[in-house]
Parts: sequence; structure tokens; C-alpha cells
Amino acid sequence: MSSSTIALLSSQLSDGVVVTDPDILASYRQDRAADPDAGTPLAVVRPTRTEEVQTVLRWASEHRIAVVPRGMGTGLSGGATAVDGGIVLSTEKMRDITVDPVTRTAVVQPGLLNAEVKKAVAAYGLWYPPDPSSFEICSIGGNIATNAGGLCCVKYGVTTDYVLGLQVVLADGTAVHLGGPRLKDVAGLSLTKLFVGSEGTLGVITEVTLRLLPAQHPAHTVVATFPDVRGATDAVLAITAKIRPSMLEFMDNVAINAVEDKLRMGLDRSAGAIMVAASDDRGGSGADDAEFMAQAFRDNGAAEVFTTSDPEEGEAFVAARRFAIPAVEAKGSLLLEDVGVPLSALPDLVTGIEKLAAERDLMISVIAHAGDGNTHPLIVFDPADADMAERAQQAFGEIMDLAVRLGGTITGEHGVGRLKKPWLAGYLGPDAMALNRRIKDALDPAGILNPGALI
Amino acid sequence: MSSSTIALLSSQLSDGVVVTDPDILASYRQDRAADPDAGTPLAVVRPTRTEEVQTVLRWASEHRIAVVPRGMGTGLSGGATAVDGGIVLSTEKMRDITVDPVTRTAVVQPGLLNAEVKKAVAAYGLWYPPDPSSFEICSIGGNIATNAGGLCCVKYGVTTDYVLGLQVVLADGTAVHLGGPRLKDVAGLSLTKLFVGSEGTLGVITEVTLRLLPAQHPAHTVVATFPDVRGATDAVLAITAKIRPSMLEFMDNVAINAVEDKLRMGLDRSAGAIMVAASDDRGGSGADDAEFMAQAFRDNGAAEVFTTSDPEEGEAFVAARRFAIPAVEAKGSLLLEDVGVPLSALPDLVTGIEKLAAERDLMISVIAHAGDGNTHPLIVFDPADADMAERAQQAFGEIMDLAVRLGGTITGEHGVGRLKKPWLAGYLGPDAMALNRRIKDALDPAGILNPGALI
Repeated sequence: MSSSTIALLSSQLSDGVVVTDPDILASYRQDRAADPDAGTPLAVVRPTRTEEVQTVLRWASEHRIAVVPRGMGTGLSGGATAVDGGIVLSTEKMRDITVDPVTRTAVVQPGLLNAEVKKAVAAYGLWYPPDPSSFEICSIGGNIATNAGGLCCVKYGVTTDYVLGLQVVLADGTAVHLGGPRLKDVAGLSLTKLFVGSEGTLGVITEVTLRLLPAQHPAHTVVATFPDVRGATDAVLAITAKIRPSMLEFMDNVAINAVEDKLRMGLDRSAGAIMVAASDDRGGSGADDAEFMAQAFRDNGAAEVFTTSDPEEGEAFVAARRFAIPAVEAKGSLLLEDVGVPLSALPDLVTGIEKLAAERDLMISVIAHAGDGNTHPLIVFDPADADMAERAQQAFGEIMDLAVRLGGTITGEHGVGRLKKPWLAGYLGPDAMALNRRIKDALDPAGILNPGALI
Repeated sequence: MSSSTIALLSSQLSDGVVVTDPDILASYRQDRAADPDAGTPLAVVRPTRTEEVQTVLRWASEHRIAVVPRGMGTGLSGGATAVDGGIVLSTEKMRDITVDPVTRTAVVQPGLLNAEVKKAVAAYGLWYPPDPSSFEICSIGGNIATNAGGLCCVKYGVTTDYVLGLQVVLADGTAVHLGGPRLKDVAGLSLTKLFVGSEGTLGVITEVTLRLLPAQHPAHTVVATFPDVRGATDAVLAITAKIRPSMLEFMDNVAINAVEDKLRMGLDRSAGAIMVAASDDRGGSGADDAEFMAQAFRDNGAAEVFTTSDPEEGEAFVAARRFAIPAVEAKGSLLLEDVGVPLSALPDLVTGIEKLAAERDLMISVIAHAGDGNTHPLIVFDPADADMAERAQQAFGEIMDLAVRLGGTITGEHGVGRLKKPWLAGYLGPDAMALNRRIKDALDPAGILNPGALI
């Protein structure tokens, strides 16, 4: 039955859009969360334009087939995990971009990479700020579906702050235009923002209108090593209470050593923590801010503080920070956390995780977008060691519990996907959860869009 | 029947919360849109805490009584117009604020004025940017319900960019917490953003968590007079393509003369337009930007350009711009427009309105938050002159039609309310309109919340 249903879809689309080759299907089962419970899709569908996405969703609605939308599959929460009996709808072939330098906006299809968007707008002297660490391999559509964050968010905000408009195909195949290249528009409910971060559960994004900024100014970078994590996190609070750095990143001792193992750049392996901070304010202000941050680091016990106005030198430290996840991954399998807390609770979160690692006898490396309270504890384990794998799973939940106790969230920027779904109801509480459910039911009554993810 | 129903509500609330005095009821019939079709409410209810709001909405749901939520009644689109047989729920008595300088957030009840929020956070060296012209008399709850804009939006964004969390009471009386003092939080759908700008149609906001910035730096101000409007609007495009001014405001000849009539500050009455621009960047950068803008004004035909780094001198011109609406109001009754366009269409919008004023033989003054393409055409008419009033009404619609033809919106920052509702479906189109309706029906199935407004 299912093969004739797929044939029916295939007959309505251009050659090559619907793929059923088993090897290709296998490569679309998981995203970077590598969910071991991933299903195998009936087909992978790679449309090239909005009308084809509409065709797919009309067909899926009629036959009650689950649709898992997917960008480049770099998600870390299993938001694009395939489900048995469903299809994967990949937007990777939709890659157009039009930049309007006067209105300072770009209209982009979802399959373009974040780095490609940055490059295309840079040709006009413009800048698209959001910068998830995976920006060279993740798609803009996936960024919008997860409301992705990054390193510059501490000053420039997250993805939703740059989304002015969307074209979205709903579960029934209707294509809706929301918002557009207008900096202010309050006509109707804020539906554009509702779709940002909806993880493919409400519709499929087929076009986005992005707000752009003038090119970023070269940053002054400050790097500081601390004997322990507490000094570093206390310095964060001293800084963010007074100024707006363009970056304020944290790595703990495990991350420092993992990065140093790979990059051999002379990081202090004995340091408890390293902070990498930057200011991109213009004129003398960037240097003033860098000096303010350097002083805040010294005041909070930094052993060594290094300041540079050379962008390449600064970028080397930022690259080291970006490299921390792959570097720690070399130590074993990872459970990658993404908890965030109100900034004042950051020190307690980081020291709480240290304590938890000791209690569970696990290596947990903490890296963090410290300036907005968003941390990525990396739980390292050996999947062949059943007891350790069990302890890692326990720690995964305990870190979320700790964050929530401190007034924080179970996910700051990666999304709920399938990995964190068991914790969502507990975090939101029954009333907010019911409200999420009411919106989902109103927009996708048959539940065909990304079932099992988010809600 | 209705009086016993009101008595039932009254018995569930503290003394004085429910008001039925006819003189008081009369004063809550209209907001600043002065809708002539406003009804008379059965009661005005002024709760002091969330639990009382819940009591009101449970009662309203049970008895199917319409609830019109209201802040300080400064709305310009009739979003708080009372309806016959309904109640007005005013949040004016809910006025608490708690500032957390470390996390740089404030938790505020909806009845506090925007200016009071600014003042309370300034005591901690912090700044709440959104600045509608009515900031001294409008409530923060109303600002959130309309996603209010203002003068600094061109650089700092609109209200929604500063809302991290909400407590909302739904139609059935459930109180839901959404978001909170976390700079990044993607756990669940983006419901906080959905309620911002929902004009009281989805729930009643009883508490908001605001994101704050460090105090603004003193601005450099540039004032330029132009012989005609085109040079001014062309200069706007030259500026926003390159830099991020903190203000970029426009007044046409009618507004200049109306302000000069009242303030006698020596404005050039023969000028076709005046631009008031500012940069609050620090160090030498603010002065650099001011000089860049001054040159852009000269390059586009400015007759006179005046630059000052004295904040008080600059503020006098900003105050003149803020005073434009009341000043023009002295010329007659006003229909106050709020159309916005993609920035590249601003010159065509402004010259198109000039042409329309000539064709309809009307005085239409254009003031604008030019830097984000948001204009406020003020249509002046004499209500005693039926023919003129008719022409004014026609122009009101024609200006929206013009904006939409230019790729713009029918409302940039004031909201749809009841005044612009007839134009919403045409602007959004049937599919986006249906989507708005689905969300409304999902959250307020009986339609008791602000019926007749927005959707």
C-alpha cells in the first residue's frame, strides 16, 4: 500500500524529487542528535519550490502520512529524526537569495546555509548576525525552525529578532505569507514569530525575509584564564551589568584540554576556565570595553589576561571556542546539553554541574555562551560501558532539573526535538503545555507535521 | 438580568473593584481613537492582582460577557473601545515593578506607565528602550498588547524585542506563565511573542518580564530643513543603508507650521520638510555618525543643517517632533494614520500622500518614524463639514491602499483595533486571515475577549 501511495506522490512531482533508494533513506534517518530510536522513512522528498511543498503536504494530509521537515540535519535535539511510515521533507534544494541593500533585507529560501547567507549579504556591505557554532553547515531554514542562537546573541539577539516575514506551507498544503520587508508591522496576530522555533510542527517554511545590519566592525578580543570556574562566571555578571560585549564565551578545564589536544595553540592546561570576550563597538569604545572586561577578569581572580585588537588573532580564540564540541567529542560519545538560566544563576549552574559530575563519576565539560546564561554541558561516556551510559543518561536529566530549580530552561537554543520532549511538560507546567497543544491542534489537527517532536 | 450578573461578579471581588457609576462608565467608553460607535459597558472592573483577573474571566466565560481589556486608554485604533453589554477590564491598578540589575530584567505589572518603567530601571543605571510618543501617559500593558513602537525603534527595535516573559490570563480564567528572565529559551512554541500585539483578543496580560539595556549614551543630534519632502526621504535611504542612527524622524511643512504656531522655537515655516536625526554611539562614533548624516542631508539638498552634541538642545527638537500630533490636532479633527512601507518605498509613499491630499482637497500632514518606513499621515477635517468629513474618510482608506500597493502595511505600530479592522482581511489575504482566525478560535472559542477588535 505504502509504495503505491509514494508512487502517487512521485507522479505529481518532477523527476528526482521523491527518493526511495534505501541507502539514501538511511542517510536521512537521523540528525546530529543520532537518535538510536530513529525510524526509516518511506521516502525522502526534496522539493525545489513552494508549489512542490504544497503538493507534498496536500498528499500527506489526504493519506495521513507523517512529514518530518529537515534542513541540513545539523540539529542536536532530534527535531529531524525520521519516523517509520512517514516521509522526510528536505528543503536542501531550495537555495535562492535576493538581497535588497536599500531596505536592508534579504529574501531567502530555507536550504541556503547560514554561512552562505552571511556571504551573500556581505557582498552588499551587510551582515546577518545569528551565528550558531555550526554556521558553516547548518541551513537558514533549520535556524528559523529552531530559533537558533550562537555566540553574538549576547549583544545581537537570536534568530527570531531577524525574521521579518515568512512563507509557510501549512499541514493542508495552504501557502501563507506572513509579514514581509517592513521593520514595523502590527496588522494581525504575531504569526511570523509563532512559526520561528516551532521545529516543523506547525508548517514548513519555504521562504524567509531577513532583517540585516550594516557590516560588523572589527572586534577587540580579551582572553582570560582563571584558576577556577567561579571567578570566570562572577566576572560575567560584573561585565553584563555594565556593558554590552559582542561575545562572552566560557570553556572549562576539560574543554581547554580537549581543544589543546587538537589545536596545540598554547592554552594553559591547568586553568579552571577560559573566557573569550569581545567588543565590536566603534571608535575608542571597543578598546574601552575590552579594557573594562580585562579589569573585570583581573578583579575576579584571572591568572592571565590577554587583549588584542588584531581581528585574526582574536578569531583564533573564537575558533578554539567553536571547536570545543568536536574536540570533546574525541573523548567519547556525547550527551550534549543546552540548559540556560537567568544570568544571576550562572555561577550556581556551572558549579552545580561540576558537583554533579563528581557525584556521578562522569566527565562533564561545560562550555557556555556565558553572557546570556546559556550553557552546553557535554556529558562524555563510553556506550560500551552500560553502567556509565546509564549514569550519563541520569546526569542528562539531572542537569535539566538543576537548571529548572535555578529558574532556568531545559533548552536555550537547540530546541526540544525528540530528545528533550520527556522534560517539556514538567518544565512548562500543565497550563502552558495545554496552550502549546491547543495551538498545535488548531494548525495541524491530524498531527501529520513532525509527530513526536516538541509536543 | 445584567445587573444581577454584575452583582454576582462584584460579590467575588474586593470592594471597589467593580464600578457601575454611570459617569465613570462614560469615561471608559472610548480610547484616544474616540470611536463614535463606542458602546457603554455594564461595568468597569479594576483588579489589583492576577487572581482577581482570573475571577473576572471565569465569570465572563460562564455568563458569555464580552471583556474589553484596557491599559491607560491611549490607543489610537479603538482597540479599547467599550462594547454594549460587555465590561471594560482596566489594568490601571496593577502597578508593581521589581528590577533585577544583575540579570538586567524587570518584572512589571501592566498598569505601570511606560515612563514609570523607564524611571524605575534608570535608578539602576538601566534603560527600557521602547518609546511611543505617548510614553508619559501610556501603560506598559497597552504597549505590549499593541507591540508599540516609537522613535528609537530604528536602532533598538519594537516592544516585542524586549518581552522575555508574560503571565497571561486566558478566556477561561487560567493563568499561564510563558517565558521568563532568560535571554534564550526555546522550550515549547514561541507563545510569549504570540501574545505581544494581540490587542487583548487572546488573553489579559497580568505581568511581564522585560529585557533591559545599560543606560543609553548621550546622543548627537542633527536637524536639517529641506525645500521639499523628496530630498528628506532620499536622505533617509542614504543614511540607513550605511549606519544605524538611534533616531531618524520626519515632519512635513504642515507639521512644522503647526508646531511653530504652538512652540515658537524658530522653525523655518517655508521648509518642505524637517528631519531630526540622532546617533547615540559612544566615543567618537556618535559624532562621526552625526557628521555622516549631516553630509547625507546636504547631499540631498538640505537648505540648512544644524548639529549639536548638547543633549538638552537635541531634546528640544525631539520634543518638537513628539509634539507634532497635538499641534496638528489644533487645526481640526484628526484621522490619524499609521501606514508603513519597505524603506525603499518611503519617498513614493510620502509624495503619493501629498498628491492624494491635493486631489481630495484636504490638509494631510505627514510625520514619520522615517528610519523604519513608518509614517503617521494626519488627515485634518471639520466634522461639521459633511462633505469634508466624507473626503477625509475616503482619504483614510486610500492612504492604506497606497501603502499596500507599495508593499506596505495598514498599521506599523498603533494596531488594528476597531478602526482598521475593515482593511485587515484585504491586507492579509484570505489564507493569513483564516490562520489568524484559527488561533483566535483555539484560544477564545466563545469569542468573549475584545470582540470586534483586530479579528
